[in-house]
Amino acid sequence: MRIAVVGASGFTGAEMLRLIAGHPQLELSGLFGASSAGDPLAQHYPGLDRKNRHQLQATSAEAVAQVADWAVLGLPHGSSARLAAELLELGVGVVDLSASFRLPAALYTEHYGDHPCPELMGSAVYGLPELHRQKLPGARLIAGPGCFPTGVTLACAPFLQAGLIAEGLLIADCKTGVTGAGAKLASGSQFCRVADTIMPYKVEGHRHTPEIAHNLSALAKSPLKVRFTPHLLPIRRGILSTCYLPLAAGVGAKDLRLALHEFCDDEPFLHALPSGLQPNLARVAGTNEVEIQVVCDEQTGLAVITSAIDNLCKGSSGGALQALNIALGFDEGAGLSGLSATLP
Amino acid sequence: MRIAVVGASGFTGAEMLRLIAGHPQLELSGLFGASSAGDPLAQHYPGLDRKNRHQLQATSAEAVAQVADWAVLGLPHGSSARLAAELLELGVGVVDLSASFRLPAALYTEHYGDHPCPELMGSAVYGLPELHRQKLPGARLIAGPGCFPTGVTLACAPFLQAGLIAEGLLIADCKTGVTGAGAKLASGSQFCRVADTIMPYKVEGHRHTPEIAHNLSALAKSPLKVRFTPHLLPIRRGILSTCYLPLAAGVGAKDLRLALHEFCDDEPFLHALPSGLQPNLARVAGTNEVEIQVVCDEQTGLAVITSAIDNLCKGSSGGALQALNIALGFDEGAGLSGLSATLP
Amino acid sequence: MRIAVVGASGFTGAEMLRLIAGHPQLELSGLFGASSAGDPLAQHYPGLDRKNRHQLQATSAEAVAQVADWAVLGLPHGSSARLAAELLELGVGVVDLSASFRLPAALYTEHYGDHPCPELMGSAVYGLPELHRQKLPGARLIAGPGCFPTGVTLACAPFLQAGLIAEGLLIADCKTGVTGAGAKLASGSQFCRVADTIMPYKVEGHRHTPEIAHNLSALAKSPLKVRFTPHLLPIRRGILSTCYLPLAAGVGAKDLRLALHEFCDDEPFLHALPSGLQPNLARVAGTNEVEIQVVCDEQTGLAVITSAIDNLCKGSSGGALQALNIALGFDEGAGLSGLSATLP
Amino acid sequence: MRIAVVGASGFTGAEMLRLIAGHPQLELSGLFGASSAGDPLAQHYPGLDRKNRHQLQATSAEAVAQVADWAVLGLPHGSSARLAAELLELGVGVVDLSASFRLPAALYTEHYGDHPCPELMGSAVYGLPELHRQKLPGARLIAGPGCFPTGVTLACAPFLQAGLIAEGLLIADCKTGVTGAGAKLASGSQFCRVADTIMPYKVEGHRHTPEIAHNLSALAKSPLKVRFTPHLLPIRRGILSTCYLPLAAGVGAKDLRLALHEFCDDEPFLHALPSGLQPNLARVAGTNEVEIQVVCDEQTGLAVITSAIDNLCKGSSGGALQALNIALGFDEGAGLSGLSATLP
Repeated sequence: MRIAVVGASGFTGAEMLRLIAGHPQLELSGLFGASSAGDPLAQHYPGLDRKNRHQLQATSAEAVAQVADWAVLGLPHGSSARLAAELLELGVGVVDLSASFRLPAALYTEHYGDHPCPELMGSAVYGLPELHRQKLPGARLIAGPGCFPTGVTLACAPFLQAGLIAEGLLIADCKTGVTGAGAKLASGSQFCRVADTIMPYKVEGHRHTPEIAHNLSALAKSPLKVRFTPHLLPIRRGILSTCYLPLAAGVGAKDLRLALHEFCDDEPFLHALPSGLQPNLARVAGTNEVEIQVVCDEQTGLAVITSAIDNLCKGSSGGALQALNIALGFDEGAGLSGLSATLP
Repeated sequence: MRIAVVGASGFTGAEMLRLIAGHPQLELSGLFGASSAGDPLAQHYPGLDRKNRHQLQATSAEAVAQVADWAVLGLPHGSSARLAAELLELGVGVVDLSASFRLPAALYTEHYGDHPCPELMGSAVYGLPELHRQKLPGARLIAGPGCFPTGVTLACAPFLQAGLIAEGLLIADCKTGVTGAGAKLASGSQFCRVADTIMPYKVEGHRHTPEIAHNLSALAKSPLKVRFTPHLLPIRRGILSTCYLPLAAGVGAKDLRLALHEFCDDEPFLHALPSGLQPNLARVAGTNEVEIQVVCDEQTGLAVITSAIDNLCKGSSGGALQALNIALGFDEGAGLSGLSATLP
Repeated sequence: MRIAVVGASGFTGAEMLRLIAGHPQLELSGLFGASSAGDPLAQHYPGLDRKNRHQLQATSAEAVAQVADWAVLGLPHGSSARLAAELLELGVGVVDLSASFRLPAALYTEHYGDHPCPELMGSAVYGLPELHRQKLPGARLIAGPGCFPTGVTLACAPFLQAGLIAEGLLIADCKTGVTGAGAKLASGSQFCRVADTIMPYKVEGHRHTPEIAHNLSALAKSPLKVRFTPHLLPIRRGILSTCYLPLAAGVGAKDLRLALHEFCDDEPFLHALPSGLQPNLARVAGTNEVEIQVVCDEQTGLAVITSAIDNLCKGSSGGALQALNIALGFDEGAGLSGLSATLP
Repeated sequence: MRIAVVGASGFTGAEMLRLIAGHPQLELSGLFGASSAGDPLAQHYPGLDRKNRHQLQATSAEAVAQVADWAVLGLPHGSSARLAAELLELGVGVVDLSASFRLPAALYTEHYGDHPCPELMGSAVYGLPELHRQKLPGARLIAGPGCFPTGVTLACAPFLQAGLIAEGLLIADCKTGVTGAGAKLASGSQFCRVADTIMPYKVEGHRHTPEIAHNLSALAKSPLKVRFTPHLLPIRRGILSTCYLPLAAGVGAKDLRLALHEFCDDEPFLHALPSGLQPNLARVAGTNEVEIQVVCDEQTGLAVITSAIDNLCKGSSGGALQALNIALGFDEGAGLSGLSATLP
């Protein structure tokens, strides 16, 4: 299967290149960029192309269609949607890593503005296999979930699905590594702004909030309100989500643990941690794994759920590749078996 | 005023030494340790004694009383209380940095076990000037507040005091630097355990929870439940507290901002940040300052309050020194005027 | 091929487990420890055994020989040598990651004391394929090179071998990540000792100096003196070596670059970087790659050579696995093809 | 004494503001910027102006002269020299933190190009009190030394001055924190470029080399060649210099130690560390202190000298303030007495 990466100089594009290099059935057949067109890949990521064999080409649907059966788009949501439409027209399958196809049309318009090709929105499959595995085989347009929504949705789904949560409010206090801000030169990503602190940001409102609410309300008995607060960590990769959910009457620690295992134990990338062990970003760095823990706080009637993912891998390119594997009928974990080299 | 530091090889003791060195009216007249007795201070903290003039002595109430008018105790809560009793008996004023005198007797016993000198508990003044300034002048036994309780209490007090918060539940999601774990050799403080992640810990329950609840319930119209989750950051100093409180009916952003300014603007160390600027641990590192911000989340009916302190300074030795300054009739900010050298 | 790891709770042992998990021809058939015997592997490294299938057994030559054809020893040099002798006797091939078999007998005794089985020293092959590839096929006892010697030897070898270096002195100023200090609880590995600085250590003398001198003197026209200064970095993995070598008369930048390419270009893991690009530890983290750069300083008559390796991978378990692959007739890069997940 | 800071939005300007705030005899009477003119200081450094009292004005010699007796210039070397000339003309004393007045005219031209006011170069005093204290009283133009030259010169001076060093070559392998790169938005200062590695840079040649050579050749019996290699550390502040100097015949460890103490012991900011203790950047962060250690490597005939400074403080604004104190007849350490808050 020939695959092209568009936006190959960005962080999610680069992560996809890393994963494709270890995938037994995917052949990288083209790299595309905009301002980086013409550059050798090694100029941007020397470690991803040690033999200096790859060059970025200028992006056009025709150029991509000429070389690839599928394309991964690591682009801003506007241009991503337009290109996706053209590629599908030309018979190229699309994995879109932007927000273009993650939300229902009305919700998208409310938070991101007009959509360039609303007619396509219904045909996209939301690429979170743990909730939508059955819709993926044969999909031609896969919407890669947002990084925070991946971490929070997978943390909370086990308990909502099992009916253990009362009506009300989810508070998701999330902490992300700096790669989440992308490769663009930005004042907020300067070392001296990031080091020695943890920075709350977009506390007034973050666009991932409706995506989280949409995912989880579908599992809850009634619409769930979501308070989501992201913080920037002085580390490279990873999202730790600390989630607070109100327990339904009579629910105890045992119920929570059972629900967690029920949800996780047959999933290839979900890990219900043993009691007493908390999720660890170093342990999932560079992997597609998700670590989840739950604590029952009886005094306050809350489930305190924590999850750890790698924002670039399971939270973006890895999760999308897992979905693509299913869409193509490959082994779900193909190209995603590496262990974290961050630990020890 | 002659002052001695007991437990001078620990982190809070060392921080007190740093602050005393810059205090115009305090004279360091003795350093005491247990396992470190006999050591030069420079062996533990070369930067705190470049001329190698100080040596730690073995701790006894008599030895302390011989050299000092006041003593700062940086000890575990058990031994701290016993020594405090003896020192007061000998006429030495005591600043206790442990948990020994922070809680009402019943609450203490519930969470820490039997108290060695319960008769003293009522005479201690809780050293949080922003709430108890009027009780401090003339105090002989000052209980230094816990680090997390300092950060969370000062974040939430403005809004509880102003009556803007509904009955219910405080969720305090706190992130602390590694100095919070103390100077003791511990597996959880090894670099390779701490780096590249943020580690939730004591999620099942942390002893600072009742101290927070006690502080804030006194300000609320009714007892406040508290869910407190600490996380360990891969940085040295600082506590960022992200607090979620339910708004009383009809309360809006303007009310919150007014209450914040009312509470902070006359306080020497509290800073109500301008809208859009979030608290920053680097900016308060090494200082006694407290940065606070509030955001009104109308969708969920929550006040999202964030505060930043230095856990060793305002969260421990600095806050205690501020209280001591008041007790002794000194300028409240004496020895506490340094600006953060972490920024830029 | 059945392989056992002895010392599986240490950092080099754990790294070998990570690599074996991705190796197509090696089957992990046993894990052994001393104080950790009886523990599940997941207790020490949850990320290395998510299904909780492995348990550490008490170490004995017999127990190892029962389950394995080859054993990797991640042990202190004393006990390592004794076990190696017993294992070889029982027909088990040995990859030794300690210093036991790296040096000629006389040099070993001078720096490490008496050797428990000196008769074996001559039969060990020094596992640095780039210099000793032809001796590895069929080897039964492989001595994994030291981490610093790997980085410095590979940096300097190209220029010594090409005869471009004058008699004299190598200065190797090396910077290592904290995993180099091992998994043992140690005051020098505490976060608050390591963070926010770079710490020179063992400046008076480090045992890797004779290994470096021995490696390089064999390539030089005459014995090379070596000044080696290690520094501890506040990062997890990697060794950056900055090496200063005196140029032979008439040698210029072009000669250096030619020699570098000649040495590296046919090697699977060596990378002569293009001019202007310096080696980067993040780029080699978790990989077996070696990045090398050279600058000709005509003003001072020095070659300034820099190299980057991952101390746990190419500098220990990865380099040893590369050597084992050759010894066993496998593809040299088997199990070593992963790209760094640290970048971006 | 009224003092103005020009270039107050840069890192060295900001550091000078921090130090002036704690200086008993200096009154900050003006802040000037270029692109930042009109901004409140608190917009750039909220922690330096918590009461929001300062605003940056547009820079002109007249505007500065109107409010200040002395000006500190934290500007690029070109514009700095021009402004210095105008200010001196208007009777304003100048502390210049750029390279404009650090070098003899010929050397300056060789490395920085034409000088805008060469006639002034001779009248500047190089602000390194440890070598030029006697020239400072009454000075009107002080050239603040470069950060690397400060660290390396103070490390090597004791031994060159004592005649313990053979003719030949200094190798200075230096490691600096990221604040050394300045406040400007730059790709090389992005967190994901700096973290998890140590980056050699300008290995082909760095402009601080001639300044180091000039300083030290004046102390040596004959011109000293200098090989200087800077590396970028993933920390905020500090320069660790590891220096290698050839010993003169017959020189031993005792001679080196004697010379070190002779040079340091009467200096207010120099600290000859006891044997076995290496310099530590955390211990000098935010201070004007210099820690120096020396090891005698008899095998190679080298003195291995290490020094630690804070690049922004002693290496720039602090060292310059020390010089200014002398020039003005103040106590040399005025405003420079703070201890490091980085430790513990």
